[in-house]
Amino acid sequence: MNNNNYQQLTRTFQRLSRFSHLSSIASWDMFAMMPPGGSQARGEALAEMSVLQHQILTDKKVGEWLASAESEDLNDVEQANLREMTRLFQQASLLPESLVEAKSLAGSKCEHAWRTQRPANDWQGFSANLKEVVKLSREEARLRAEAKGCTPYDALLDIFEPDMTSARLDSVFGDLKSWLPDLLARVVEKQAQQSFVPPQGPFPTAVQRELGLEAMQMLGFDFNAGRLDVSAHPFCGGVPEDVRITTRYDENELLSALFGVVHETGHARYEQNLPRNWLGQPVALARSTAIHESQSLFFEMQLGRSNAFLKHLLPAVHARFGSQAAFSEENFIAWNQRVKPGYIRVDADEVSYPAHVVLRYEIERSLINGEIEVEDIPALWDEKMQSWLGLSTKDNYRNGCMQDIHWTDGGFGYFPSYTLGAMYAAQLFSAAKNALPGLEASIAGGDFSALFDWLRQNIWQHGSRFTTSQLIEQATGEDLNSRYFREHLTSRYL
Amino acid sequence: MNNNNYQQLTRTFQRLSRFSHLSSIASWDMFAMMPPGGSQARGEALAEMSVLQHQILTDKKVGEWLASAESEDLNDVEQANLREMTRLFQQASLLPESLVEAKSLAGSKCEHAWRTQRPANDWQGFSANLKEVVKLSREEARLRAEAKGCTPYDALLDIFEPDMTSARLDSVFGDLKSWLPDLLARVVEKQAQQSFVPPQGPFPTAVQRELGLEAMQMLGFDFNAGRLDVSAHPFCGGVPEDVRITTRYDENELLSALFGVVHETGHARYEQNLPRNWLGQPVALARSTAIHESQSLFFEMQLGRSNAFLKHLLPAVHARFGSQAAFSEENFIAWNQRVKPGYIRVDADEVSYPAHVVLRYEIERSLINGEIEVEDIPALWDEKMQSWLGLSTKDNYRNGCMQDIHWTDGGFGYFPSYTLGAMYAAQLFSAAKNALPGLEASIAGGDFSALFDWLRQNIWQHGSRFTTSQLIEQATGEDLNSRYFREHLTSRYL
Repeated sequence: MNNNNYQQLTRTFQRLSRFSHLSSIASWDMFAMMPPGGSQARGEALAEMSVLQHQILTDKKVGEWLASAESEDLNDVEQANLREMTRLFQQASLLPESLVEAKSLAGSKCEHAWRTQRPANDWQGFSANLKEVVKLSREEARLRAEAKGCTPYDALLDIFEPDMTSARLDSVFGDLKSWLPDLLARVVEKQAQQSFVPPQGPFPTAVQRELGLEAMQMLGFDFNAGRLDVSAHPFCGGVPEDVRITTRYDENELLSALFGVVHETGHARYEQNLPRNWLGQPVALARSTAIHESQSLFFEMQLGRSNAFLKHLLPAVHARFGSQAAFSEENFIAWNQRVKPGYIRVDADEVSYPAHVVLRYEIERSLINGEIEVEDIPALWDEKMQSWLGLSTKDNYRNGCMQDIHWTDGGFGYFPSYTLGAMYAAQLFSAAKNALPGLEASIAGGDFSALFDWLRQNIWQHGSRFTTSQLIEQATGEDLNSRYFREHLTSRYL
Repeated sequence: MNNNNYQQLTRTFQRLSRFSHLSSIASWDMFAMMPPGGSQARGEALAEMSVLQHQILTDKKVGEWLASAESEDLNDVEQANLREMTRLFQQASLLPESLVEAKSLAGSKCEHAWRTQRPANDWQGFSANLKEVVKLSREEARLRAEAKGCTPYDALLDIFEPDMTSARLDSVFGDLKSWLPDLLARVVEKQAQQSFVPPQGPFPTAVQRELGLEAMQMLGFDFNAGRLDVSAHPFCGGVPEDVRITTRYDENELLSALFGVVHETGHARYEQNLPRNWLGQPVALARSTAIHESQSLFFEMQLGRSNAFLKHLLPAVHARFGSQAAFSEENFIAWNQRVKPGYIRVDADEVSYPAHVVLRYEIERSLINGEIEVEDIPALWDEKMQSWLGLSTKDNYRNGCMQDIHWTDGGFGYFPSYTLGAMYAAQLFSAAKNALPGLEASIAGGDFSALFDWLRQNIWQHGSRFTTSQLIEQATGEDLNSRYFREHLTSRYL
């Protein structure tokens, strides 16, 4: 068997994966454990590691090995691995180190200033920093677009969602725009007739944590290979062998932390079930950000907020927090399926969430493609929020375009993943329901094993072996189709 | 100013320091946070990093820069830094990369398995792993000894204690052996006349933790730059900007965890007060392991178990755990100064502690010099414990040679540091007492600021600028002298 170049590549990517392991744990620690005084040294250590990884990945020899390995004797998985290696090499090689460094510095500056600018509603101050971030992201997009032969925004989109394009997004999101506003209005009108009993706190953090751990247990989280901790913003980090998820607790509010845990458990189980035999190689990485979000939304929305799961979960809530009126079966389900359009994306229900995402997608696409400037963002934001949700954000930057840090680090191209993930989740759940008769009864009985086996077989175990389209077609019989998301929202909320 | 080669070196050592940062945090995490399933991947990631650091440090260019930098225009600190860089380069250059990696992997494997083997008293399982560790350490010692022209054990000793030799240790420890057994016997006999009231538990872990945090606060630990956590074996890790200390709790036993915290706080304050301006360079590292231990023992034994400090500490104990008979001032002091020879080194009082250390020193020296084999350890251990402390460890591996992880990672040569540290601590405390009139009254009043200033000025702020002998002579007026340790034990216990 002649695959010497391929072997050199696997060794190089194994090294990179091991260095990523150290960065992942140090990053998790930074958000979950680190005292403030460690911040500068940690930032420098992580940056030094990024530079090293960029150097290793873009080494001329890697390019030579990639070119030569194409004619080597490789099996299917190895060929897929080579495809993913090539993709990572090309993405990294397009960026000069100076731009990587300048982006990192501008992002840090913008994010750091945002912490005080947001409470002060200081758009002037924020936009000055954001302009620099946008300038560098446009430069990155230009370099990538030239090499790829596409629009600048599509070149950034491709980093997160391989093979996804603005044209396809415009079609998918265009479809959404044709029916979601009306559906949302009808749901809001319907729920205005209902009465909801809000849960009454306090809910002590330690008990919330125990309930979260119990939910993770129910959902098959492998505690031998992961942890639950606390951070300011919930996330899933670590490495497949040791997945770290976090949530945040508010003693007056029970369900936000709990469903944060359920959401991150979806991400975690994907990571924990990536193909063990290929770990350390690019082919073992999760397929894409949209597929990753599809797993967390599958857990949080498709499964977690279903009537059947909520019924199964309720006794655990009673056992920890007694049985107040809000925890009647009817109200518990209704409360968890409440639809309430608001300013803040991360607090949004699943019906109004796409409005936030499509709005951000349309603005960031125009911004990266040079059709608008940073100054144009607030007016556009206000116009789109008025149109989608009937909410004015005029002069309300803090709850408008300054509400989160997603743009401060130049992560343009990520936003579409959230709503693509919601659509994939609906499509996958529908396929699983067809494949698994009696699924709803199983869920109500707390037996999710068949459902998780289905996910393992159809999504988790494949890592990045297939393209997103191949993966979804194999699992559901067709490529992305937003019909399932519409059907899901209609049947749950109307 | 011509110091181009020196500048190249500082950049290289800064990189190494940043990579060490990531390894330190990942190592802390491994002991304090990591679920078992992460073990193999973590071991591999840390080993990969060791290999990288070894490559960077032993690069031919580093040797050239070191040679050329000697004739450059360097101030005193830079010259000391160059001396330390040269030392690290020479130590690393002696080891082939394959040995570095093999040692790291064997150490991780041995340590990880020990966690379950110790409770199971599984010497067979443990010794199989330990043999591999010893084999690799002997190979390392052989390579170092050839280059240095000394015995294999002395070559390892030199890594931890520059300039220390077996010959000097034999003299220092020989002196100890001439008077300590008699002193110990007299103390035990004297204390047999006393009556002690043992503290009655349970002492809930959460409250013990709060008391530990309060003690750290008293002792000046900077919580902006560090944490307290739990691990099987207490340690101090992290980086100077973010020092991680750990302890372990037993709900039936209050003082072991508390004085573990006091001990590690001594290590931590040394790290937190290393020279900020030189951080990232070898000259800013702690002087040696014995000097490090001198700081922890200064805190735990010289200060922490003094009558004055115990009086000051007692109200905090009352506040957390009430005022049972054991917490009368007289009994609290007596209990904390109780001398009770036992199996476990880390639980030992300061009079019997040297027995554990000299025993380990003698065994590991013979083991590394090839005079005994791993199989011989239990019998030798038993014989020496019988001789020093009258305790049998026959078939009791878990409380004998498997009691801690010190040998699992091949850290042979470290043990002498503990008793050297105790001697340095006594010598330093004696000098501080001479320099600071009214010290005892300050301690009883809870004001340790002058004492800590003295340590900062005489030890902490110097990092590795001076040799150990220079450092101790500047601080105390003479080189290592075990007389102070003897005087301390005599005055406290007889």
